[in-house]
Amino acid sequence: MNNEHSTLSFMPYTYEFPRPSITVDCVVFGLDREHKLKILLIQRNLEPFKGEWALPGGFVRIDETLEAAALRELREETGIETVFLEQLYTFGKLDRDPRERVITVAYYALVNLWEYQIRAATDASDAAWFTVDALPSLAFDHDRIVQTALKRLQGKLRYEPIGFELLPEKFTLFQLQKLYETVLGQELDKRNFRKKILNMNLLIALDEFQQDVSHRAARLYQFDRLQYEQLKEKGFNFEI
Amino acid sequence: MNNEHSTLSFMPYTYEFPRPSITVDCVVFGLDREHKLKILLIQRNLEPFKGEWALPGGFVRIDETLEAAALRELREETGIETVFLEQLYTFGKLDRDPRERVITVAYYALVNLWEYQIRAATDASDAAWFTVDALPSLAFDHDRIVQTALKRLQGKLRYEPIGFELLPEKFTLFQLQKLYETVLGQELDKRNFRKKILNMNLLIALDEFQQDVSHRAARLYQFDRLQYEQLKEKGFNFEI
Repeated sequence: MNNEHSTLSFMPYTYEFPRPSITVDCVVFGLDREHKLKILLIQRNLEPFKGEWALPGGFVRIDETLEAAALRELREETGIETVFLEQLYTFGKLDRDPRERVITVAYYALVNLWEYQIRAATDASDAAWFTVDALPSLAFDHDRIVQTALKRLQGKLRYEPIGFELLPEKFTLFQLQKLYETVLGQELDKRNFRKKILNMNLLIALDEFQQDVSHRAARLYQFDRLQYEQLKEKGFNFEI
Repeated sequence: MNNEHSTLSFMPYTYEFPRPSITVDCVVFGLDREHKLKILLIQRNLEPFKGEWALPGGFVRIDETLEAAALRELREETGIETVFLEQLYTFGKLDRDPRERVITVAYYALVNLWEYQIRAATDASDAAWFTVDALPSLAFDHDRIVQTALKRLQGKLRYEPIGFELLPEKFTLFQLQKLYETVLGQELDKRNFRKKILNMNLLIALDEFQQDVSHRAARLYQFDRLQYEQLKEKGFNFEI
């Protein structure tokens, strides 16, 4: 295999059977300060679908893993450096790309928008956050990929404390409840929510309170990762 | 694209950048009559790893979807026609195949061994069922794929009634408990298990009983798919 393929133009690679191209695409979720669930999209500056919004992503190089490709594309197209990243699903319909057969390995990422500012796009024309329930129409089959990612996020929230990736390190119970309500798309009873979440023994109550708020400052909490790792072994259930 | 590539030898396909090969691999689970969890393996009749045991699978054709490729390989190598099949994970480590870069999209399948007899292998040297805790060493990274599939099965059993795919259509509560115990790898309290499973209102108690048993014939039950579809909308939890 040739590691320098990207610098050699018109270097042909020949195979006995036709091969699909392999890409990665990333659904990046963030929760903004108004507790809206957002997805990061880029505006394509190349055909096909030039000028349209799409998920950040691109071709996998022969000498990089799938995850490395996803991280590289995120960095190049959105400036995001470190995120929670998990493989979502591989989409392989025959006609999903008008150019040729392209199979894409989709990932989803969770970004803490409270503490992390996304830089402007570099490789793409533009990059912007869109509220999940007001997305523009997307290139390729990216609508379907987004819907798959949303379902995964909703499902995972019920059996893994994945939501903490979307919150600042120290958060209020109000913020945590808003996160659940936003992702699950339903209002939750405050008293019930607090009782359940505190009974899980996964939160550390801090001797710290919100600052710079006009209302009564609420207590801050932290997620107890160690305790969670122990509970997980027994098949922990994070149902709210 | 050429639909006849498999009949034309030495037809070259040329690309500007090197491309990986794409394969599918299937972890087929079955529960035998002694309530042992088994996996279907094939013995490779080609290099690399010739003569060694591996998951059924093979190269994805340019004109077939990933799922179609998985079903075709299952049929060709093991004779299995219709199964519950879901995508598991895509494995893309650089050195997982000694020949070249090969990315594999893994699937897992659930087969009802009570009602379904697996034919002998056709495309492979041999095919056989192995108990999950006594597997031979496997070709490629198939050990890792099997472990990933096992974890997925264990996890899914907690929030989807996926286990019913492994049982006959009509089953006893004893069989259902054995299934959970086998997959989760732990003994469950009989009284507690029955109480929980019956409280879910997902079983239809039949006016039928086991036949041809030496002990007292137990009542047969059926899984209530309609009821489950309704409960699922609300975020149903199948915790045992």
